[in-house]
Amino acid sequence: MNSFGRIFRLTIFGESHGESVGINIDGCPAGLPVTAEDFSEDIERRKGGTQKGTTPRKEDDIPFFKSGIFNNTTTGAPVTILFENNNTRSADYTKQRTVPRPGHADMVARQKFGGFEDYRGGGHFSGRLTVCLVAAGVIAKKLLSKYNSSITVCATITEIGGEKDPEKGLQRAIDAKDSVGGIVECRVSGLPAGLGEPFFDSAESLLSHAAFAIPAVRGVEFGTGFAAARMFGADHNDAIEDAAGKTRTNHAGGIVGGLSNGNELVFRIAIKPTSSTPKEQQTLNLETNNVETFSVKGRHDLCIALRVPVVLEAVTAVVLTDLLMLEGHISRILTR
Amino acid sequence: MNSFGRIFRLTIFGESHGESVGINIDGCPAGLPVTAEDFSEDIERRKGGTQKGTTPRKEDDIPFFKSGIFNNTTTGAPVTILFENNNTRSADYTKQRTVPRPGHADMVARQKFGGFEDYRGGGHFSGRLTVCLVAAGVIAKKLLSKYNSSITVCATITEIGGEKDPEKGLQRAIDAKDSVGGIVECRVSGLPAGLGEPFFDSAESLLSHAAFAIPAVRGVEFGTGFAAARMFGADHNDAIEDAAGKTRTNHAGGIVGGLSNGNELVFRIAIKPTSSTPKEQQTLNLETNNVETFSVKGRHDLCIALRVPVVLEAVTAVVLTDLLMLEGHISRILTR
Amino acid sequence: MNSFGRIFRLTIFGESHGESVGINIDGCPAGLPVTAEDFSEDIERRKGGTQKGTTPRKEDDIPFFKSGIFNNTTTGAPVTILFENNNTRSADYTKQRTVPRPGHADMVARQKFGGFEDYRGGGHFSGRLTVCLVAAGVIAKKLLSKYNSSITVCATITEIGGEKDPEKGLQRAIDAKDSVGGIVECRVSGLPAGLGEPFFDSAESLLSHAAFAIPAVRGVEFGTGFAAARMFGADHNDAIEDAAGKTRTNHAGGIVGGLSNGNELVFRIAIKPTSSTPKEQQTLNLETNNVETFSVKGRHDLCIALRVPVVLEAVTAVVLTDLLMLEGHISRILTR
Amino acid sequence: MNSFGRIFRLTIFGESHGESVGINIDGCPAGLPVTAEDFSEDIERRKGGTQKGTTPRKEDDIPFFKSGIFNNTTTGAPVTILFENNNTRSADYTKQRTVPRPGHADMVARQKFGGFEDYRGGGHFSGRLTVCLVAAGVIAKKLLSKYNSSITVCATITEIGGEKDPEKGLQRAIDAKDSVGGIVECRVSGLPAGLGEPFFDSAESLLSHAAFAIPAVRGVEFGTGFAAARMFGADHNDAIEDAAGKTRTNHAGGIVGGLSNGNELVFRIAIKPTSSTPKEQQTLNLETNNVETFSVKGRHDLCIALRVPVVLEAVTAVVLTDLLMLEGHISRILTR
Repeated sequence: MNSFGRIFRLTIFGESHGESVGINIDGCPAGLPVTAEDFSEDIERRKGGTQKGTTPRKEDDIPFFKSGIFNNTTTGAPVTILFENNNTRSADYTKQRTVPRPGHADMVARQKFGGFEDYRGGGHFSGRLTVCLVAAGVIAKKLLSKYNSSITVCATITEIGGEKDPEKGLQRAIDAKDSVGGIVECRVSGLPAGLGEPFFDSAESLLSHAAFAIPAVRGVEFGTGFAAARMFGADHNDAIEDAAGKTRTNHAGGIVGGLSNGNELVFRIAIKPTSSTPKEQQTLNLETNNVETFSVKGRHDLCIALRVPVVLEAVTAVVLTDLLMLEGHISRILTR
Repeated sequence: MNSFGRIFRLTIFGESHGESVGINIDGCPAGLPVTAEDFSEDIERRKGGTQKGTTPRKEDDIPFFKSGIFNNTTTGAPVTILFENNNTRSADYTKQRTVPRPGHADMVARQKFGGFEDYRGGGHFSGRLTVCLVAAGVIAKKLLSKYNSSITVCATITEIGGEKDPEKGLQRAIDAKDSVGGIVECRVSGLPAGLGEPFFDSAESLLSHAAFAIPAVRGVEFGTGFAAARMFGADHNDAIEDAAGKTRTNHAGGIVGGLSNGNELVFRIAIKPTSSTPKEQQTLNLETNNVETFSVKGRHDLCIALRVPVVLEAVTAVVLTDLLMLEGHISRILTR
Repeated sequence: MNSFGRIFRLTIFGESHGESVGINIDGCPAGLPVTAEDFSEDIERRKGGTQKGTTPRKEDDIPFFKSGIFNNTTTGAPVTILFENNNTRSADYTKQRTVPRPGHADMVARQKFGGFEDYRGGGHFSGRLTVCLVAAGVIAKKLLSKYNSSITVCATITEIGGEKDPEKGLQRAIDAKDSVGGIVECRVSGLPAGLGEPFFDSAESLLSHAAFAIPAVRGVEFGTGFAAARMFGADHNDAIEDAAGKTRTNHAGGIVGGLSNGNELVFRIAIKPTSSTPKEQQTLNLETNNVETFSVKGRHDLCIALRVPVVLEAVTAVVLTDLLMLEGHISRILTR
Repeated sequence: MNSFGRIFRLTIFGESHGESVGINIDGCPAGLPVTAEDFSEDIERRKGGTQKGTTPRKEDDIPFFKSGIFNNTTTGAPVTILFENNNTRSADYTKQRTVPRPGHADMVARQKFGGFEDYRGGGHFSGRLTVCLVAAGVIAKKLLSKYNSSITVCATITEIGGEKDPEKGLQRAIDAKDSVGGIVECRVSGLPAGLGEPFFDSAESLLSHAAFAIPAVRGVEFGTGFAAARMFGADHNDAIEDAAGKTRTNHAGGIVGGLSNGNELVFRIAIKPTSSTPKEQQTLNLETNNVETFSVKGRHDLCIALRVPVVLEAVTAVVLTDLLMLEGHISRILTR
């Protein structure tokens, strides 16, 4: 249930205010050089700490390698990476238990796990766990580079609060004293044709499966996406131009029939506005059984979308690594 | 690779002009009454034969039960349903091999399977295989009804060619002598809270995984979907109103934190315009290595979206059945 | 639940007296030549019809390719093979329902599937389904030959009724007017080192998993097997003699640390005596709730072990094919 | 590859002299009380430190809960348990690299992982990792008790070095200055009928799969096992005596047709003699390419079988828990 992938397979664990969060990567090829420093850049990008609209909280996200790395190189055994939680002190979460926050998993977690869930800070549902995805993404990106050194996986914000200019969209949220959503686009060049399967494991199926594992994602679209529903066929079809399958246009976003077609992979995800907003909201008080007004305390991201690009790159790289391994493009032992 | 699901698990097989197409359902509970007649309505809906904009071709889609049904009841063994192909006569597909159709899987199939693929009529990539999904959906819907007789799974067209009125959008395509895309929305009421998992098997992950297995899908969005990216948090959050988790609004589309929250499940998919359009198009001739103009012969759906609702209902019902079984809501033996 | 394998993945279905029995092979590489004739020899070996001790019943086991084979070659789509049942006429199985046969699955099938099981002739539990395993084995053996043309997978009877000479053991059963068990040994030469995983997917784990899927298997042992438990370490250890890992002795049976070591793979399975014996037996009458004496009517195998070698070869070849694919030794497209 | 189970699913990781060894349990029900003390007894049994024939090395095997446990209770999130390694100091393993030990995984690990493997102390292949299996077993046993408080899972040594009296067999090894093997039997009472599946996931398939994940296992047999191959049918069949399926004898070892039949589960595994023996042995020197005589330094278990019972109980309990969850006998939330 908390695993994903067929050969390059992730298992995620941990809770926001528990001992730690972490990830296990099974099927990681042997012979990949890995150091803690390799993770710094992407982990830093995820924090978004210097960007307007993200919370300035400083988390010391140091990856601890608990398995699978020896002499700074993967051994072929499962790679397990842990991030310790430093915030496990006793805070008062009684309020949160009584007043489930709208948009958060508080209520459904309680329903699913019968009240046994670790409710502190979102528990296992916390965005904190995306640091594990980022870590797996770092490994995956390195593997993709081994396959093809010119491959690029790049996600960027294309819209905040309906504005193409993120700064402008963010300012609207600041002015409104509210949180706001956004759109993130991911592009990958350098892929071979033929990744994915015709039906259940179509490239779109796997990429969307992974993308919806990122908290706050509300939609996924490939190529022209929802706009394709408003197009005529002759306009939408991408004319094939050479024997490698290069197309004149790329409305398909690099996937046809569930398979990569060798053109640039392009897809977008919609991120809902951060559930924790400075505004007052209404929700049920489970003790009094009354709907009451409450407000979220503390500092929160005004726009969680700002932190998402590196996470989207990570899950994308993970899916593609698995598909490349399935097709034999990345082998289980890397040559030195 | 052609399988999906954890307990209620589908395996799809077959090729458009091969012997047959079919589906195997592993983990189907014992004791479910099933007759061939149960499939008629949904199979008929998929044909879309009487609707303007769909091809009038008459396929005799009779489900043959090859395993798992005895005395018109499921036995607990895998349920295998076959649909024979009646169109396996020798047609001339040489042209199609030489001139891969834009938007179709012709080119990628050849790249993936090295030229060994059954290229006739799209082969294993053909929309023909969706009849198997529909068949699995019929079984799944019956199981959902056993769980809760008032459950409803209902998909409808909400847009054709950019028009809310499907007739009007279709007429635009007819006038333009081109094919056109559309949007299909699926709604499910009567679900319990707690279906799905926090990360990789979030309800959205699984539903989108299944939805993208339907050919021609370009996007999936839940609740307010992409529009959520343009909203403020206070507007988007759904206030919880009672102890069952009922919310005042339903921008989340019935899923929070990856889990169903007991409200109506609402999601939409974008269908691209049919790749086979009456218009002339350009593509590579693999023999001459020149880009040339060609046109698709024969009758084709102007708008494949018209046939999709019943397929979307099917994969939705399949995912929900599996999730209900995982939570123990549907058991492996049905009481009479 | 009825599936096995990671890349080369089988799904088995069907019931003894239902419409058909069959198998789906997902992940079968494209480009493998396959004709119905390729199956004749192994299917014939399974029938054991000319051997003393096996039932002379003539089954017409013709493989019908329903998916994945085109122009006598695998296409890369799932390979589905069906065997129709010709014995689905109305026989009287009322007796069998009332008096569950000892050693057969009659009683447990009823308990598991709540009385909905197809009880005719053992239903989904019938040895009839091993023809599907044999069919998958034919495909797997062909793939192994593609990897290494000198590979051999060979299972033989090493013991019947405690006698090294099968004829002699069989004669004992005939004299005793009873059924009898036996031991089957499988040997595979030509394997590379490194197949399998250290723990859960050790080569022994996977091979024994597959071997115990064969009805009537009571034990599996590798190399010296149970005898190893009575040996000293210095006698049991196999001295490594060359850089390829060749060992002086082969007590390990070709597997060390869960991985193939490049030496001959050797393992044995114990087959219990056929449950249907000519002798009178006692069992519960579910109607009267009394234990009563009964005898099995009709002709039955005196020694089912005689039919097992080809089935054991099949599941062995299937496991090895999957492991070779996982290591990239067999790719998803075979070169012509 | 390092995972096992369908709902109650284990993922094992770590290396003997790496940072740590550990296990992740996905699908563990919420609401199970768990403390570190619960693990003491079984971890102590595994050490075998006070028994003659086991190494007296003192390992501080303290389970660290890194995920899934809150307020001494499982939360429903994955349960991750870590055991830190305290022996990661720089020892001289150069010799071991050059001279692969017979019977150990040194040689095959190098072949599989291309020389990147962590070779220190057996690395990922080390028996050290069985402490993780034991930990998972503790959780599984607690869940079994929740299902049925009178359930018992009990493994014992039935033979050492060919002697029914373990002391006597061990003395033979001491006298011979060699290591020795043994046989371990596991019995489980209190199981319901119907656990397991007819073919690939037969109860024997799953139990043997798990048993062969334990290092040094060479054989698995159920009920009368290999002896059944020498029996007549009328003697081997177990007469059914009551409506619950109780049988007069139990030659089947509690499994018929791949399913538990409600009688006692009985199976045995053969453990080879410890590969590290005090005796001199021969093996290849990879540097000189000559076969040379060498002897293992340090203290080692004379009979590793002595430490196996608790590990066999563990994997047995894990398999049974998963099967009970699949049948809905253990639910995902435990009532308080």
